[in-house]
Amino acid sequence: MKVVDILLDFIKSTNDRNAKILDFHHPSEMMRLLDLEIPDTGLTLQQLLIDCSTTLKYQVKTGHPHFFNQLSCGLDLVSMAGEWLTATANTNMFTYEIAPVFILMEHVVLQKMRELIGWSGGDSILAPGGSISNLYAFLAARHKMFPAYKERGLAAIGGQLVMFTSDQCHYSVKSCAAVCGLGTDNCVMVPSDERGRMIPSKLEELILERKAKGHIPFFVNATAGTTVIGAFDPIPEIADICQRHQLWLHIDAAWGGGLLLSRKYRHPRMTGIERADSVTWNPHKLMGALLQCSTIHFKEDGLLISCNQMSAEYLFMTDKLYDVKYDTGDKVIQCGRHNDIFKLWLQWRAKGTEGFEKHMDRLMELSEYMVRRIKQMPDKYYLILEPEMVNVCFWYLPTRVRNMPHTQERIKILADICPILKGRMMQAGTLMVGYQPDDRRPNFFRNIISSAAVTEADVDFLLAEMDRLGHDL
Amino acid sequence: MKVVDILLDFIKSTNDRNAKILDFHHPSEMMRLLDLEIPDTGLTLQQLLIDCSTTLKYQVKTGHPHFFNQLSCGLDLVSMAGEWLTATANTNMFTYEIAPVFILMEHVVLQKMRELIGWSGGDSILAPGGSISNLYAFLAARHKMFPAYKERGLAAIGGQLVMFTSDQCHYSVKSCAAVCGLGTDNCVMVPSDERGRMIPSKLEELILERKAKGHIPFFVNATAGTTVIGAFDPIPEIADICQRHQLWLHIDAAWGGGLLLSRKYRHPRMTGIERADSVTWNPHKLMGALLQCSTIHFKEDGLLISCNQMSAEYLFMTDKLYDVKYDTGDKVIQCGRHNDIFKLWLQWRAKGTEGFEKHMDRLMELSEYMVRRIKQMPDKYYLILEPEMVNVCFWYLPTRVRNMPHTQERIKILADICPILKGRMMQAGTLMVGYQPDDRRPNFFRNIISSAAVTEADVDFLLAEMDRLGHDL
Repeated sequence: MKVVDILLDFIKSTNDRNAKILDFHHPSEMMRLLDLEIPDTGLTLQQLLIDCSTTLKYQVKTGHPHFFNQLSCGLDLVSMAGEWLTATANTNMFTYEIAPVFILMEHVVLQKMRELIGWSGGDSILAPGGSISNLYAFLAARHKMFPAYKERGLAAIGGQLVMFTSDQCHYSVKSCAAVCGLGTDNCVMVPSDERGRMIPSKLEELILERKAKGHIPFFVNATAGTTVIGAFDPIPEIADICQRHQLWLHIDAAWGGGLLLSRKYRHPRMTGIERADSVTWNPHKLMGALLQCSTIHFKEDGLLISCNQMSAEYLFMTDKLYDVKYDTGDKVIQCGRHNDIFKLWLQWRAKGTEGFEKHMDRLMELSEYMVRRIKQMPDKYYLILEPEMVNVCFWYLPTRVRNMPHTQERIKILADICPILKGRMMQAGTLMVGYQPDDRRPNFFRNIISSAAVTEADVDFLLAEMDRLGHDL
Repeated sequence: MKVVDILLDFIKSTNDRNAKILDFHHPSEMMRLLDLEIPDTGLTLQQLLIDCSTTLKYQVKTGHPHFFNQLSCGLDLVSMAGEWLTATANTNMFTYEIAPVFILMEHVVLQKMRELIGWSGGDSILAPGGSISNLYAFLAARHKMFPAYKERGLAAIGGQLVMFTSDQCHYSVKSCAAVCGLGTDNCVMVPSDERGRMIPSKLEELILERKAKGHIPFFVNATAGTTVIGAFDPIPEIADICQRHQLWLHIDAAWGGGLLLSRKYRHPRMTGIERADSVTWNPHKLMGALLQCSTIHFKEDGLLISCNQMSAEYLFMTDKLYDVKYDTGDKVIQCGRHNDIFKLWLQWRAKGTEGFEKHMDRLMELSEYMVRRIKQMPDKYYLILEPEMVNVCFWYLPTRVRNMPHTQERIKILADICPILKGRMMQAGTLMVGYQPDDRRPNFFRNIISSAAVTEADVDFLLAEMDRLGHDL
């Protein structure tokens, strides 16, 4: 297994702060550098090892301490070892018959997660990413409220179904509306306040407005940790409204969910989460499990199966040797399902719940440190808002704007340099921080600290390096 | 990395024909045998290694040469090494920015697969399993034919959409109808002949019947390799009907797709596949790529993005350093996407296209061998039908029925012993072959040869072992 040596070298250079994060090349150039061709006859083992090395040489090191670019950063070695074992065991999660240990692990871990949400019962499943988790919530809600929909479709309902979410939500919520046949026009975007949190009074207004049109509101998505600025929608107020209008409350905590493990930070951000009907929570984000590891949880047991079961008797027989209630195949829309549990279970065993709590607290403290440092350098950095999470949103100020007032004119300059400065980071290979516009402002940087490898010194490096690369812009 | 030694031991025992495939325990017993608890404080490295060993001790060896239970059997070591590298690189497939090499590999491999289908252009994506691949086809078809559906939903259309598939199709096709809001009543099941192939004249009748009701037929699914008996729907006749009625033709070749690599076996089974609008093809089945690896292909380029794009400008910016046409995030419904390409690319490099062709021919030859052997033992085995693929469907005949005529009474006995004999296989741990009923007959065994590890001697072992375990039933 010479490939293991190649992988260990990659891990070593991932952890080496002096090594580059990436060796950037444009797509056309990269096509020339790499030999990706599919040959007619097989290549030698020697060539395959070169293939592995070359692939890693040009791959971005997402576990490098100076990679702050995505919600998922870092390389947890226990989770990685878990994924190697998962690959070696190469099984499918649809029945206890062929995945007995892994199926039981799902029971234990998902139950633990539901307890952390604040539920004693319920049901859960792992899904291929947060978007599909949100889709599961949507489907279960529709099924619960309109059981005839499954067989008869829209014809079973006398009107137009409508869902609600904040204008800061992840786009997968809107995608549900397209996929499931509501149409995106019937995914109503509720305005958010200047901190990115849904405005509950606006939600209620919009519900009443749609009801007045004869539409049928049925689903509200509240986000716990928005993608760009890490905002938390106010759950208690939204839950009251859902109760009043008998709407399903889903909480997309794909990003923020990890903070449920922190006694210090879960409140007030997710106070009231136990009032939700369903919760999405991605351990592959804050918890650092390897990609992918996403979960969806339901307060009511039995709903997943009654919603998704197609009674494929030829696959999920009930006359088996063992108690088939452990078979999960009929609960899901994917049939075959990748084993995403082992890496998380092993990681949780390694860290313990307290270890995860410390990890969350540490990530938040580092983000607070970054905010303090930014405030100490008002000539070089402009903090856009006080973060509720590890998303730190800011502009970098090059020399020429330092004496300008902070007007729209300056903001335009700051926004325009984002892609250029990002390009310089990638060309230098020393740092990766993401940027994007939102509906309030043009391009700005959004830094994410979600890797256990990051230290205060790395935050200092980040701020110094952006200045080194960008001061003349 | 002591965990590597544990994994290598597991691989060794997977390849050892004298080792058991599984050590079966009922769920409640297994819960007692295992320590799955999530601790408050982290466990030692020593304990984690024990966890890994214990997990593998009780896991079913899906790569064992005597595991014939699923469509995905075998453990391809190159693909496995690829998956280890994938885990170590731990990246997300939404942008070229963070997965440059892997994104380019997708381009090369998916283009090769489209060429094998018979298309010069088109577009493709990897999806988490065949069911989601089929869902992609459904969504693209709906979007192509009713572009206003995305925004306005069913209100954009004046009537009830209807889809068609054979009664032997994978249940995920029906699931699409539930998920997407048509309702399963509007997924019309077309009868199949005694060999499990859709009857084209029935398809046309049903289309006309629905049209007469004022419904709007738009989508036909033809299966290339059905799950249970491995049947191939007649593509040319179905394509003619789709052309006549202007319906989208999707081919679910999740299972049979691998045979496109065999010049000997692709015809007549998949003759005309190039006439389809979309094709699902799972390399994690016949091609032996590790789970999961599923692809969906479209004849028309540009459709995936116009169908699924939610214009999440905050994630998929167009002002980047590089040519963003390589970013795939906006084409998919998952946002984050697991890297399923590297293991397949590496495996294809190792085998070459010719190596894959040999692999397909070998699997088919072994299945033909099994059929011959079964026919040589008419006292012990009853072949249910001549297979078109590696699905060999049969009943085992215990001693007491060997002199009975093959009536419904005998069939009932043969069906009743399936779960018992399967239970004995699992208790003995020496063999795993699946069984299920279908809509024509009660329980019967379905054997799958999809692992490169299987030899003629393993087929002989299978037939002898079932007799040893079952003769007294």
